[in-house]
Amino acid sequence: MLGIEQIGTYIPSQRISNYDRQEQFGIDSHFIEKKIGVRSVSRKSAQEETSDLGQRAVESLVNRSDLDLATVELLVVVTQTPDYSIPHTSALLHGRLGLDTQCACFDISLGCSGFVYGLSVVKSFMESNGLKRGILVTADPYSKVVDPNDKNTTLLFGDAAAATLISDHPVLVPGAFTFGSMGGEYDKLICRDGVLSMNGRAVFNFAAKQIPGDLRLMAEKNNIALEKIDRFLLHQGSLIIVETITAKLGLEPGRVPFSAGDFGNSCSSTIPILLIDEIDDPTVKTIAVSGFGVGLSWASTLLRRV
Amino acid sequence: MLGIEQIGTYIPSQRISNYDRQEQFGIDSHFIEKKIGVRSVSRKSAQEETSDLGQRAVESLVNRSDLDLATVELLVVVTQTPDYSIPHTSALLHGRLGLDTQCACFDISLGCSGFVYGLSVVKSFMESNGLKRGILVTADPYSKVVDPNDKNTTLLFGDAAAATLISDHPVLVPGAFTFGSMGGEYDKLICRDGVLSMNGRAVFNFAAKQIPGDLRLMAEKNNIALEKIDRFLLHQGSLIIVETITAKLGLEPGRVPFSAGDFGNSCSSTIPILLIDEIDDPTVKTIAVSGFGVGLSWASTLLRRV
Repeated sequence: MLGIEQIGTYIPSQRISNYDRQEQFGIDSHFIEKKIGVRSVSRKSAQEETSDLGQRAVESLVNRSDLDLATVELLVVVTQTPDYSIPHTSALLHGRLGLDTQCACFDISLGCSGFVYGLSVVKSFMESNGLKRGILVTADPYSKVVDPNDKNTTLLFGDAAAATLISDHPVLVPGAFTFGSMGGEYDKLICRDGVLSMNGRAVFNFAAKQIPGDLRLMAEKNNIALEKIDRFLLHQGSLIIVETITAKLGLEPGRVPFSAGDFGNSCSSTIPILLIDEIDDPTVKTIAVSGFGVGLSWASTLLRRV
Repeated sequence: MLGIEQIGTYIPSQRISNYDRQEQFGIDSHFIEKKIGVRSVSRKSAQEETSDLGQRAVESLVNRSDLDLATVELLVVVTQTPDYSIPHTSALLHGRLGLDTQCACFDISLGCSGFVYGLSVVKSFMESNGLKRGILVTADPYSKVVDPNDKNTTLLFGDAAAATLISDHPVLVPGAFTFGSMGGEYDKLICRDGVLSMNGRAVFNFAAKQIPGDLRLMAEKNNIALEKIDRFLLHQGSLIIVETITAKLGLEPGRVPFSAGDFGNSCSSTIPILLIDEIDDPTVKTIAVSGFGVGLSWASTLLRRV
């Protein structure tokens, strides 16, 4: 049985405060605290590349576990802001981490749904190929593509990375997954000529409409009532989207944490950053995870403690 | 049981002849015919994007099969030259092909090893999630990143795409896979500032050294002697690399086709383009496939006719 054994994360220490940008963008503390919920966004240094963020997350994972990197058989990097378009960032990390020659490596191009998708891809690839130890890195430092004068993106997105160890000594095992795509809406969150643009209203409406139903479907596929699920770790798009989905499902807010206030929406790393707070808490038995955004796309599953 | 049911391909009609460039690059017909083996390279039109090539390949697949696109549950695009860095190209294709909302979509970032890797990713993801019909698109039109004055790349790489239907009505079923990475060599085939550069000698030496041993290992994992394998479909990097691997393994050249003479090395699409010539031939029972290149990386497996 394969599942999540441990998680490491890396959030760069540099911050840009959204309070310092109230005048520039015509926003107030209500908007910062009650709408987007992001007080400051994390920013990598100019020297740091996507692979560096991933490497720091893997180092954190090694520190938090007894992982011997020489035994890793699969490395998958989820990113849409790779160091180079050719080759894949997992190749760079493979070399730098000194992984085995027979370690399989590839990147997945997905955004905010990427961690949940990646969990299914890694788990199924490992099962099918008889592997015991794989690392799923999520690293999408959007500061590489965010226009610092674009209110729709610069106030929201923060840089971070996570590294998730999937192994045959699991703590949290995923059940049935749900996936979805609305490819006709591909241009609602898009990078053209190196600059990200987001139609915030369209992305909000998509998530508010699709995700509650998807979580119901996911619970049904996992034969569990929503009331029986201890935590809902939703992609941290903004406070208001997390609160809206929470309200639509009639959940107590305490079961649906929001943790992005100090560093922002880190794309595919938001869910593993939330998970690190839950993985060592034995009272949390069941966790719904749901990622949604770029594509537009979404993916959800249920994690059960072993 | 899941496997390859049918394949569609698209090779743009425009060609650049390498004979017309003998003077520019100081090459002769011996170099063209006996070394690289590529007489002309295919080029997409300026208007065509990666998604367009993929769409044409899917249309070819639909023409060659009885596939109803409404029943497709997974679409994976292998590319390192996507239309946009954000979102994934599979999202664009999802919308354009009118696929179902619950169809899972993601891109894999891999180069010349991408078809074989993708086959394992798609098959295992489908098995794990109980899916019956998925499409693996390979589309990497390197003309987007090739410098027309760089002899190392412009004489070799041609534009093409393929779409492979993986389903529960398979014709060719993959067995055990082998994978490998030499991430320390990541800069031997790399795109910097939008321009591809290749250290041809390093890539040749890598393939000549790694792939024969990998094919032996793959055969061993599949409990078959090399002599019993009807065809070896190797990534069409160049004629000389295909001939070198053939000679090192002591294979008769007739079992190891080279088909890229008229359009060039189409990266992750070379193997499905070769496969389309074999899939309807009932006398070909066993086919080794091996992709190698960008990363540096490689992947091999054995296909058995059902």
